[in-house]
Amino acid sequence: MRKKSLPLSDVYRLLEPGPVVLITTADKGRADIMTQSWHTMIDFEPPLIGCVISNRNFSFGPLMKTKECTINIPTVELSSAVAGCGNTSGRDTDKFKRFHLTPVAASRVKAPLIDECYASLECRVIDAKMAGKYNLFILKVLKAWIDPAQKNPKTLHHRGNGKFMVAGKTVTLRSRAK
Amino acid sequence: MRKKSLPLSDVYRLLEPGPVVLITTADKGRADIMTQSWHTMIDFEPPLIGCVISNRNFSFGPLMKTKECTINIPTVELSSAVAGCGNTSGRDTDKFKRFHLTPVAASRVKAPLIDECYASLECRVIDAKMAGKYNLFILKVLKAWIDPAQKNPKTLHHRGNGKFMVAGKTVTLRSRAK
Repeated sequence: MRKKSLPLSDVYRLLEPGPVVLITTADKGRADIMTQSWHTMIDFEPPLIGCVISNRNFSFGPLMKTKECTINIPTVELSSAVAGCGNTSGRDTDKFKRFHLTPVAASRVKAPLIDECYASLECRVIDAKMAGKYNLFILKVLKAWIDPAQKNPKTLHHRGNGKFMVAGKTVTLRSRAK
Repeated sequence: MRKKSLPLSDVYRLLEPGPVVLITTADKGRADIMTQSWHTMIDFEPPLIGCVISNRNFSFGPLMKTKECTINIPTVELSSAVAGCGNTSGRDTDKFKRFHLTPVAASRVKAPLIDECYASLECRVIDAKMAGKYNLFILKVLKAWIDPAQKNPKTLHHRGNGKFMVAGKTVTLRSRAK
C-alpha cells in the first residue's frame, strides 16, 4: 500500500476544504462505493464527521446495518471514476471492477480502502439518531491513511450538475485558526 | 446592493464545494461575524444546512437566542478579512468596522448580509437539538442572494493552520448528479 498512517489530529485538514469523497461500505463480502460531497467536520479529536447518506442510496442499507464505512479522497486524476461511481448504483454494479479501483483491506473496519485515492479514513457510525429525519450520520474516524507523495493534491469540489472545481494553489494567511 | 435574488433550489451549488464562509449574527442591534468552514448541505429544497458553531465562539450565544444568522461566501480578495474575523472575537471587536466590511439589511432575518461577499444566505435555526452534544445546528435557508457579475468565484478552502486552498478551474464531467 502506498499510504502511511496519519495522526488522527490531522484529519480535519483533509475534509475541511470540502472535497468530493468516495465512501465505501461492505456487507456480506460485497463492497460498494458512492460519490459524496455532503460532509462536515464536527470535532477535531477524536475526529467526528457529519455525513449525509440518503436512504435513496444503496449505501444507506449497508451503513445502517454494519455501522462502518471508509471515506476516501480522490484527486482530479480519478475524475472518471468519481463521476462513474455517482452515475451508477451498487444495486447492479461492482464499482471497484467497473471503474478500475483497487480495494485494500482496512485495519479497523470491514469496508475496504480505495488504493488510488490519496487519503482514506476508516470510520464507525457512533450516532444514527438523525439518519431518519436528515439522512445524517455522525462518524468517528478510527484510523487515517495518507499518501505522503502527494503534497498539494488536486481535489475535486462539486459545483452542481457535473461541474467540479479543481483545487487551485494554496496560500498562507495570518490566521490563528487550528 | 450588488446582489440579486437566487432561487433556493440553487443554494447547494454554493456550499457543496466547501468554501470558508463568514457567518453573521445580531443581538440587541449588535452584529458579529465569525469565520467558519464546518458546514454541509443536508437537503436541496428547502435548502437545509448542517452548521457547527462551538459554544466557545461568541456567535453561539446570539445564534441560540435569536435562531437567525446569515452565511456569506467570500472570495480570495477578502482574505485579510477572513483571517481577521477568525483571529478576533465579537466579545471585544466590531468586526464590520475593523475589517472594513459593509452590513446590508437582510429581508427575512435581523442578522446583516455582508455586501462584499459574492453570495449571502438568510438562515433560520430549525433544529438545535444537536447543539448541546455536537455544537451542530440545522439551518433552513429562507432567502439567497448572489452577485451575478462573479461567474467563477475564487473561494477559499481551509486546509488548516492558516493554509487556504484557492478555488482553481472548473471542469465538467459526465456526471448525472444534481
